[in-house]
Amino acid sequence: MTAETTQKLDRKQVEQLVREVLRQKLSGGPASVGKGATQAGGPPHPLVVNVSARHMHVTPGHLEQLFGSGAKLTKLKDLYQEGEFASEQLVTLVGPRQRIIPNVRILGPVRDYSQVELSYTDGVYLGVDLPLRISGNHENTPGVTILGPKGSITLDKGVIRAARHVHMSTEDMAYYGVKDGEYLKLRIDGPCGITFDRVKVRYHPKVVLEVHIDTDEGNAVDIESATHMELIK
Amino acid sequence: MTAETTQKLDRKQVEQLVREVLRQKLSGGPASVGKGATQAGGPPHPLVVNVSARHMHVTPGHLEQLFGSGAKLTKLKDLYQEGEFASEQLVTLVGPRQRIIPNVRILGPVRDYSQVELSYTDGVYLGVDLPLRISGNHENTPGVTILGPKGSITLDKGVIRAARHVHMSTEDMAYYGVKDGEYLKLRIDGPCGITFDRVKVRYHPKVVLEVHIDTDEGNAVDIESATHMELIK
Repeated sequence: MTAETTQKLDRKQVEQLVREVLRQKLSGGPASVGKGATQAGGPPHPLVVNVSARHMHVTPGHLEQLFGSGAKLTKLKDLYQEGEFASEQLVTLVGPRQRIIPNVRILGPVRDYSQVELSYTDGVYLGVDLPLRISGNHENTPGVTILGPKGSITLDKGVIRAARHVHMSTEDMAYYGVKDGEYLKLRIDGPCGITFDRVKVRYHPKVVLEVHIDTDEGNAVDIESATHMELIK
Repeated sequence: MTAETTQKLDRKQVEQLVREVLRQKLSGGPASVGKGATQAGGPPHPLVVNVSARHMHVTPGHLEQLFGSGAKLTKLKDLYQEGEFASEQLVTLVGPRQRIIPNVRILGPVRDYSQVELSYTDGVYLGVDLPLRISGNHENTPGVTILGPKGSITLDKGVIRAARHVHMSTEDMAYYGVKDGEYLKLRIDGPCGITFDRVKVRYHPKVVLEVHIDTDEGNAVDIESATHMELIK
């Protein structure tokens, strides 16, 4: 790969990250409030919908295999959830159709499993039949070969399409009247309006309300042209 | 481009076409029947939802510029609407980011305008800001450079994302209680279930009922895993 190509693709990913930030401005309160709602005012957090571009999570061991002994993730920019960040580290995926996807960004911090999250469009391109999974569930998932600047690894599992989900704190779950693992619908109005079923609630005490959809979903609904968004039962 | 690359991408497009045929098996009658429905039995035609991969329509003049004097479209396979077909002719698109999309199939027969239909994922890749349009509406649409084996053309307009739509005959419109230009919703149940708003009714006396969505939409809903589909008001 030439330096020019690398630079060009970097810029694309930076654009995607900038778009994610811009999307955060698009937030509307829910018109349909869950049964358990106890607050008379607005929701505890604004509704934020972010489109996750393809990315990877790594273990410290895999990071060293790809980037060399002692390698650490370095921060490109903070993500919406506190402590999460887009790193400066990029890898290349090699799929079974002898095609590659370069410049896949690693998100930090490091985890206790390695995982690659792709869209179905990416899966068709690479030739990988992606299973729909919540992050961390790697039962019966395919692997992939990953190239870094200092080495390569072949995962035997961990390549998924991330199931659409919403991060919620205790206050968010109370407001929407849902429990961890239950489902909401995400309605997005606009020229390409869509109601997404099966947005899975994922509880963590330290998160703020944030829906994650992938690029197929974000492009299908053309989220940049959305006029209103709400979570409904 | 090497011959090997061409062959590989052809196979991908053939796979897409095969998938379209398989999808036609997935049809369910509408659970919610439009107000104007006059039939006690099932719908006049089964509900067929097809995913349109990126493709192009050409004028006879542009076809000759790309494929040589006297060139005609030759049929690869019939499409669902009678008389429409996927041709054997492929072109390459060149976008403003110095990236290309090879092996874009021309659909026949030839038309009185040339048009390129892409997904937003393609648009981001090429660097083209795609407008959402019904086929044939080229007002304020961008162009693109197109390479064929015998020459190239640069369209000054006609590159669009095709707005989701449903082809209907008089009988279909009566059954669903809609008129040409009105909108229905398409509900698709399954692991990635989605309800698509704003599916525009397009009347033609000689069509059979068929919804067209693009690859972003088809991948977002993972149409191959759909358990039920219906058109609702």
